[in-house]
Amino acid sequence: MTGSFLLPKPPEKIPELEEIFLPVKKDLALAERILRSWPKNTPVVLRRLSTGAIHRRGKLIRPGILLLIAGHLGVSQKKRAAALAAAVETMHLASLIHDDIIDRSAFRRGVKTALEKFGPDFSLLLGDFLFIHSLATSFSVKDPAITALLTEAAREMIEGETEELASSYNFNLSQKRYMKIIAKKTASLFRATCRLACRLGEASLRETRALEDYGFNLGLTFQIIDDLLDITGDPKKTGKPVFSDLKEGRITLPLIIALKKSDDRGKEELKRRLENFKNNPETEIPGLILDWLKKSGALQDTLSQASILAEKARTSLKALNPTAHRESLARLIDFVLWRNN
Amino acid sequence: MTGSFLLPKPPEKIPELEEIFLPVKKDLALAERILRSWPKNTPVVLRRLSTGAIHRRGKLIRPGILLLIAGHLGVSQKKRAAALAAAVETMHLASLIHDDIIDRSAFRRGVKTALEKFGPDFSLLLGDFLFIHSLATSFSVKDPAITALLTEAAREMIEGETEELASSYNFNLSQKRYMKIIAKKTASLFRATCRLACRLGEASLRETRALEDYGFNLGLTFQIIDDLLDITGDPKKTGKPVFSDLKEGRITLPLIIALKKSDDRGKEELKRRLENFKNNPETEIPGLILDWLKKSGALQDTLSQASILAEKARTSLKALNPTAHRESLARLIDFVLWRNN
Repeated sequence: MTGSFLLPKPPEKIPELEEIFLPVKKDLALAERILRSWPKNTPVVLRRLSTGAIHRRGKLIRPGILLLIAGHLGVSQKKRAAALAAAVETMHLASLIHDDIIDRSAFRRGVKTALEKFGPDFSLLLGDFLFIHSLATSFSVKDPAITALLTEAAREMIEGETEELASSYNFNLSQKRYMKIIAKKTASLFRATCRLACRLGEASLRETRALEDYGFNLGLTFQIIDDLLDITGDPKKTGKPVFSDLKEGRITLPLIIALKKSDDRGKEELKRRLENFKNNPETEIPGLILDWLKKSGALQDTLSQASILAEKARTSLKALNPTAHRESLARLIDFVLWRNN
Repeated sequence: MTGSFLLPKPPEKIPELEEIFLPVKKDLALAERILRSWPKNTPVVLRRLSTGAIHRRGKLIRPGILLLIAGHLGVSQKKRAAALAAAVETMHLASLIHDDIIDRSAFRRGVKTALEKFGPDFSLLLGDFLFIHSLATSFSVKDPAITALLTEAAREMIEGETEELASSYNFNLSQKRYMKIIAKKTASLFRATCRLACRLGEASLRETRALEDYGFNLGLTFQIIDDLLDITGDPKKTGKPVFSDLKEGRITLPLIIALKKSDDRGKEELKRRLENFKNNPETEIPGLILDWLKKSGALQDTLSQASILAEKARTSLKALNPTAHRESLARLIDFVLWRNN
């Protein structure tokens, strides 16, 4: 099946996030302020930890999506939407902080991780605090269904991460299983972000379904490109070393495809190389693995698969009325698919 | 101030939990079944981890309190009360699992911890999962105020743990600050347990206040005795080595009192010993620290302080109508104060 895809063509100009989120610039700024504010009685130590972890400028993709959809649906309660956008980003940050502990990641987007700054113990508690803070923030919207949706997304995220960890160094991981894992780990929060905005904006069932599909497929695309950038990305732009996933034994789509395409001898050779990379990352040359991934066509196939999902997301948007917000949601797909960081 | 307390007398027979929880035996069994049940689509790996972590028989003190209060208030919806009891215990377990990672604890109550069984990465995700599962379980009661109460308790718990971690090896930790930390870390969930039961049972404001005070002071007593048992407990009964807290730099009430009672030379000597215990736990003799704690009267003073809080809890119960359940809540105070594990 793989190898038969046509390689997608990038747009003439890859859109920038600032430009994509222009229709909700003010709302996003409000969401950021909420994101950096804490209940009055928050202990100094947690305030310091949280500010340190949130300070680095994230992409704010999830809050951006939520606010674009809220804008599209004409939600007038800007503060509620911004609070919810902050809650979703806080949930994402909590999960990143715990992920970085598990992956022993010292850098993310070129900035020291909480793990590197504060050590594993404080980072663990900080992640817990942000999980709870996210749900508490969602309470401010005073709609139990919204907190329930966010809780459900958090559960799926944690389930996906646990299943991923259990699949470390499993060279027999199937593509189907990989997709199931990233659906939970990443796409569930993207989908929940859209659902939450739909609930807030009292979207029709038709709109809700379309936007759920949009979020889900965009989330899958996002994760596949993330996994691809781990191999092909420029560390200066991604802000983290290449082959970070591989160092932790994460078997991602490019590897799965390459393994599938190899004959038995090739498979054994690759497994040996990967095992060696695990035990002696210094002696194994990532360049050789990269060459092999390139030659097998796995990198191109991975991009093709991501672009198919991106097109699904694009198709979903057709069910919506044309607005500037819908236009931004569409351009976000291009950003996610073609970004270099 | 310390040293002037009269030593409290233990009751003739220290009550056993089984006997204390007899009035709610069936409800507690139902709560345990809920505690060990998972949504149908829970991944196998998390099911295995959760079951492994919950299998060891905990004391179930918090569920017991919740059900005793529900019984006292005549709550007829047994299933709701049991679900909430399970949610509270799940929250407690989540926090224990993360605590054990931070404290590098291999054993608890004589059984391997999740950390020891599954390693830090799976334990981290398991704790996250149980936090979220606890809140999700509380949704089944369909009262947003109840989920909000549980979330607030979780936040306080995490705040307390973070402040405690930030106070490691702080030999100048004041008794006031210690009390604030254990109030958040431990007493907040005890108090929330009582509040939740009151909400469920539509208790009067007077009853609610009395039971909140009961829970809060019982929680403080519980933690002080826990800290005392870390020093004086029989490892065969507590199931963990003595001086576990000290090994992690936790400065607890006995130490604070002993430091306060020492002259400057004694203080320096103790700090030197504790520092040595930190760096070379093998060469320092815990027996010497124990002797010093005994001689200073700090252990007796700690017990006195715990018993004052226990009496406060006892006084609070007087505001309630006399029932078998109230009687059990009173006997629980004796158990918490005089337990040896």
